[in-house]
Amino acid sequence: MAGSTYGTIFKITTWGESHGKGIGVVVDGCPAGLELCEEDIQLYLNRRKPGQSKYTTPRKEEDTVQILSGIFEGKTTGTPISMIIFNETQRSGDYNEIASFYRPGHADFTFDAKYGFRDYRGGGRSSGRETIGRVAAGAIAAKLLKSYGVYIMAYSKSIGTVEIDYSKFDKDEILKNPLCMPDANASKTAEELLDYKMKELDSVGGIIECIVTGMPAGVGEPVFEKLDANLAKAVMSIGAVKGFEIGDGFEAAKAFGTTNNDCFKYIDGKIIKTTNHSGGILGGISDGSDIILRAAVKPTPSIGAKQNTVNKNNENIEVVIKGRHDPIIVPRAVVVVESMVAITLLDMLLINKSSKI
Amino acid sequence: MAGSTYGTIFKITTWGESHGKGIGVVVDGCPAGLELCEEDIQLYLNRRKPGQSKYTTPRKEEDTVQILSGIFEGKTTGTPISMIIFNETQRSGDYNEIASFYRPGHADFTFDAKYGFRDYRGGGRSSGRETIGRVAAGAIAAKLLKSYGVYIMAYSKSIGTVEIDYSKFDKDEILKNPLCMPDANASKTAEELLDYKMKELDSVGGIIECIVTGMPAGVGEPVFEKLDANLAKAVMSIGAVKGFEIGDGFEAAKAFGTTNNDCFKYIDGKIIKTTNHSGGILGGISDGSDIILRAAVKPTPSIGAKQNTVNKNNENIEVVIKGRHDPIIVPRAVVVVESMVAITLLDMLLINKSSKI
Amino acid sequence: MAGSTYGTIFKITTWGESHGKGIGVVVDGCPAGLELCEEDIQLYLNRRKPGQSKYTTPRKEEDTVQILSGIFEGKTTGTPISMIIFNETQRSGDYNEIASFYRPGHADFTFDAKYGFRDYRGGGRSSGRETIGRVAAGAIAAKLLKSYGVYIMAYSKSIGTVEIDYSKFDKDEILKNPLCMPDANASKTAEELLDYKMKELDSVGGIIECIVTGMPAGVGEPVFEKLDANLAKAVMSIGAVKGFEIGDGFEAAKAFGTTNNDCFKYIDGKIIKTTNHSGGILGGISDGSDIILRAAVKPTPSIGAKQNTVNKNNENIEVVIKGRHDPIIVPRAVVVVESMVAITLLDMLLINKSSKI
Amino acid sequence: MAGSTYGTIFKITTWGESHGKGIGVVVDGCPAGLELCEEDIQLYLNRRKPGQSKYTTPRKEEDTVQILSGIFEGKTTGTPISMIIFNETQRSGDYNEIASFYRPGHADFTFDAKYGFRDYRGGGRSSGRETIGRVAAGAIAAKLLKSYGVYIMAYSKSIGTVEIDYSKFDKDEILKNPLCMPDANASKTAEELLDYKMKELDSVGGIIECIVTGMPAGVGEPVFEKLDANLAKAVMSIGAVKGFEIGDGFEAAKAFGTTNNDCFKYIDGKIIKTTNHSGGILGGISDGSDIILRAAVKPTPSIGAKQNTVNKNNENIEVVIKGRHDPIIVPRAVVVVESMVAITLLDMLLINKSSKI
Repeated sequence: MAGSTYGTIFKITTWGESHGKGIGVVVDGCPAGLELCEEDIQLYLNRRKPGQSKYTTPRKEEDTVQILSGIFEGKTTGTPISMIIFNETQRSGDYNEIASFYRPGHADFTFDAKYGFRDYRGGGRSSGRETIGRVAAGAIAAKLLKSYGVYIMAYSKSIGTVEIDYSKFDKDEILKNPLCMPDANASKTAEELLDYKMKELDSVGGIIECIVTGMPAGVGEPVFEKLDANLAKAVMSIGAVKGFEIGDGFEAAKAFGTTNNDCFKYIDGKIIKTTNHSGGILGGISDGSDIILRAAVKPTPSIGAKQNTVNKNNENIEVVIKGRHDPIIVPRAVVVVESMVAITLLDMLLINKSSKI
Repeated sequence: MAGSTYGTIFKITTWGESHGKGIGVVVDGCPAGLELCEEDIQLYLNRRKPGQSKYTTPRKEEDTVQILSGIFEGKTTGTPISMIIFNETQRSGDYNEIASFYRPGHADFTFDAKYGFRDYRGGGRSSGRETIGRVAAGAIAAKLLKSYGVYIMAYSKSIGTVEIDYSKFDKDEILKNPLCMPDANASKTAEELLDYKMKELDSVGGIIECIVTGMPAGVGEPVFEKLDANLAKAVMSIGAVKGFEIGDGFEAAKAFGTTNNDCFKYIDGKIIKTTNHSGGILGGISDGSDIILRAAVKPTPSIGAKQNTVNKNNENIEVVIKGRHDPIIVPRAVVVVESMVAITLLDMLLINKSSKI
Repeated sequence: MAGSTYGTIFKITTWGESHGKGIGVVVDGCPAGLELCEEDIQLYLNRRKPGQSKYTTPRKEEDTVQILSGIFEGKTTGTPISMIIFNETQRSGDYNEIASFYRPGHADFTFDAKYGFRDYRGGGRSSGRETIGRVAAGAIAAKLLKSYGVYIMAYSKSIGTVEIDYSKFDKDEILKNPLCMPDANASKTAEELLDYKMKELDSVGGIIECIVTGMPAGVGEPVFEKLDANLAKAVMSIGAVKGFEIGDGFEAAKAFGTTNNDCFKYIDGKIIKTTNHSGGILGGISDGSDIILRAAVKPTPSIGAKQNTVNKNNENIEVVIKGRHDPIIVPRAVVVVESMVAITLLDMLLINKSSKI
Repeated sequence: MAGSTYGTIFKITTWGESHGKGIGVVVDGCPAGLELCEEDIQLYLNRRKPGQSKYTTPRKEEDTVQILSGIFEGKTTGTPISMIIFNETQRSGDYNEIASFYRPGHADFTFDAKYGFRDYRGGGRSSGRETIGRVAAGAIAAKLLKSYGVYIMAYSKSIGTVEIDYSKFDKDEILKNPLCMPDANASKTAEELLDYKMKELDSVGGIIECIVTGMPAGVGEPVFEKLDANLAKAVMSIGAVKGFEIGDGFEAAKAFGTTNNDCFKYIDGKIIKTTNHSGGILGGISDGSDIILRAAVKPTPSIGAKQNTVNKNNENIEVVIKGRHDPIIVPRAVVVVESMVAITLLDMLLINKSSKI
């Protein structure tokens, strides 16, 4: 099916493989009149590009974006914005070996089951490079959301078993340390964990948290297109994400009505909630509080340690996966979560323009 | 927007309010030739109808389904199947009071923010009765899936802080105890917790787990329409669900690659995974293992305890919510989760028919 | 597939067969706050119900609509509006015979080819009664469009070979004569043609013209979702329609640029077109002029004259189709065209709310 | 909205402007395993590229396609196929003048009304070059359809007032003469008409006919997604098309039931129709006969003759449009019609895979 298209009014279509000619996205339905240039996009792409620390793949990619359409005299025209990022290093040689077996934790086996064969070079379409298109589109959505007063911030809440201390939350730290944690101490500890696990040829997972401020109340649809349902889909569609929470999430399952309900209060001329267990969404519709969500990211499946698997002759073999891999993908996924959240919120904001006469 | 329609090939559209004339669903895109009668639907509806134990609302509703179209000579014709369940007790009197204020934890405030006004009778469209249409449609999807060898089973994994003991897992218990727990002891303990909380006029949440067996490998789309992303949306679109996990879920965030990866093995003429941390889905595509997912359900927001809120004159008031409410909605939501999972899996199975030439 | 749903923001889903329990439609995405009652719908349904003249089937159906959801205190709530029209006369006896052969010009053969079997009672889902749901939804769309200043008027432009004389165009005549022609003389002549053809057990076709006034410029999307492309689909999806034109239509193919182009003129403070060959749409987007379109309707396939066909034993046979049929469906289809045009225009008006920032 | 995406299972998204960097298309949902190379696409693009005769714009464009993704080892992988055609001559100079006024018959005015401003260079997104993406995608659809035994052939049925003589129909002529007419004599006469009109700085329209052979019975959905309704939308979405017919089309409106119905006959082991007034579709579903459709194409709006219009200062002015234009676009649109028909038929064929269990 057409599983590479996402959104209703603000609609994106991504394409490209890890070792093909490039990666791209077509953004359709962006309202006309938004000032936009390649630099707006590049800033987002730079946050996910490899080679920024020793905790990311040493694959060298500048991931330079080119806008091919949809902009005229510095502004969006309302017609599709096509963006392309050419792949620079396509050393397929590294990957020829993996053509012959199924990597544990990867989509090699399922692609073969689905399509009958697969582009095995670096995972092809199932590569993390697929998210480049999402981030390029997300940069546009985030810029437009800012004009509505909506701001999105994501960060690493935990890396493996190392969690941030909210009492030391420092927003500026997020872009400073290599793990995108808003707590320098936690980052230090997590780096030590990573250094250790890298020596063991192992990998680590973590949790990304995302906070949206300024979202007006009333956005989202009450039944299947609930705002949180769409955010769940958006975030769970990012490779390696295995869980999603809104507000108190799984903790809410252990709470009671008296503690979980957020009371309303009229103050300073408006109605607010005095707590935010709901995470900014009630009945699928934004309630005017901050939207708070979390994504659980599994450890990178590509590891150097020895593993058991099956080759294409149906022989049980032991494999060691070579190539250039991230020991952790959480920090690079932070901007991907921001992007998918931005695209989803913007789309539902635009849809909401016809909620009443 | 058209937020009451769900699915691409197997598409459902639900309608109806808690205290309107009835609730219904139109199922479009069901393949022709499936034997189907009202009894098939009623069995599912009976699992969610109220009044089955002291832990559900005493509202009396038989929730009897009528099929109005799409069946001829006992089989589906391929054209839309319209089903209706008339509301029997529409005592709006109970609800007139809540017209004047915003119930904490409910969608009253957000509906007003979105639409300018709301049908306040029993929550209107945001009522739990909205799920009747989902269950009626889910019964059809589940029946068709069975013909493909796919079976879905959900149950309460935990109620409040009481969790089942997997070593005592007893499938038959699910339909026997009032809390749908596959462990009689855990159910007993949870019932005690509920009895206690009901006296305190409080409510309780819990976690629903769902296991799908027989799903063939290769179903799901690799990018935005990942099987797990769609399951997340499906389950998160159920009111009161605040979190979603697939496989190891949030635990995966603390795991390492060496322990989280599932190895492949060739045995008895086919390739299997020796563990199932992935929960049956790799790269968004089913891998042939059981699909395992969980939903975190918040405590019922309707509680008898005193709460603070705002009335329509913008006065800060204390309220006690009357009416007929469930102290816990987890057991009744079990079949709703099964239904949304069934609808989603069937739709993606049908979509997958054109994955290769 | 889900071929019974139409529209993006204003989305309708129809269901029901000719001889099932009833016919219905769910309208989702109607903005909240529109005053609406059953009488608004009934007025439209009355225009298509049978038995209004000797030129329609003598089948007696009052086609009384009931609104089951989506209205509260006399206004739309923004949630789905479910409407049902029960079938009163379900005398399947008349139709049992046609179970055994394929009626020429009908969908009997193609339904069997597609679904493996069919509901043969009165054509089942392919019956003209399917349009009841469209008209009920169209009544809502038309009412909302009026609040935007957009008015839709359709009529019979020709019946068989009898065409109206535009110099005698009388809008009030449309609802007065049995053929919905805006020219009493033409209607008389056409009635004579029909009387003659009815005696020959034959049937007649015609052309429906539709004029939309008040449509603002700027609505419609420039590529695949052109306003005229969507109108074409909407109108061609009505059974028996075999052709569609916008503006000069097929005449434009014989014209030259100098005569076909509409010049612009600035007058009285706004830009207008001095002619309207385009039919109100340029580049797929409304240009502020009247939208003018036409639909070619084939003669009713159900005729009493003897025809050759094949029965289910693959024998070549001669048949005479009994039952209650219209010798012409054009007059009853007029309000169906209006309805499909209204639904389409409203949907695209709502979509257009996010064309610019 | 996202008006640049078309299709449900086989889904295409086009982008690009006349004088931007290039034009492209992303084809998503193409089944895996189809052998495909750039030559397959180029053959189709060559049929629409300019400069093939004196009747097309002298703008020099090779329109060379590059495939950027979705192909591996010579076969489609099931993931999106991204194709790009760079614009070679972007002489915007020619077009700067038209920035200041609204060209009659063009979308300049409506783009401004919709988006607030427009890319005026060569019509931007409303340029005929937008169809390049459709043709590139159509080439893939047509190749896949051939593997199902479905063949599509379109040609010019008439140019201005000059119509082909069916008794002299010569399929091979279509690709030989500059007007794509299957009748050498008619082409000659039409060329004379064009020569004459070109001297008058005028332009000419025409009718394109398209015949599909080998389409199996049973494809198409019975209500809104009728096969003919979708073909109508597909063809009417091509710029300059003002009318659409299936089978007898507007002639059917003048016919009678006895002459318009196609009788069935059992012969040589299968059921056929003895005539084909329906044009291969009954009740929205293919009936196994040839599908026959027609599109009315208006004369090119860009003409050198003097016209009245309004400039951006709201002054009424006379203009003469310069630049490189086609005096007729019918011959170049032939392959565009074929492409849109191919995309639509393939999509509905794939959708139909789940019509019955």
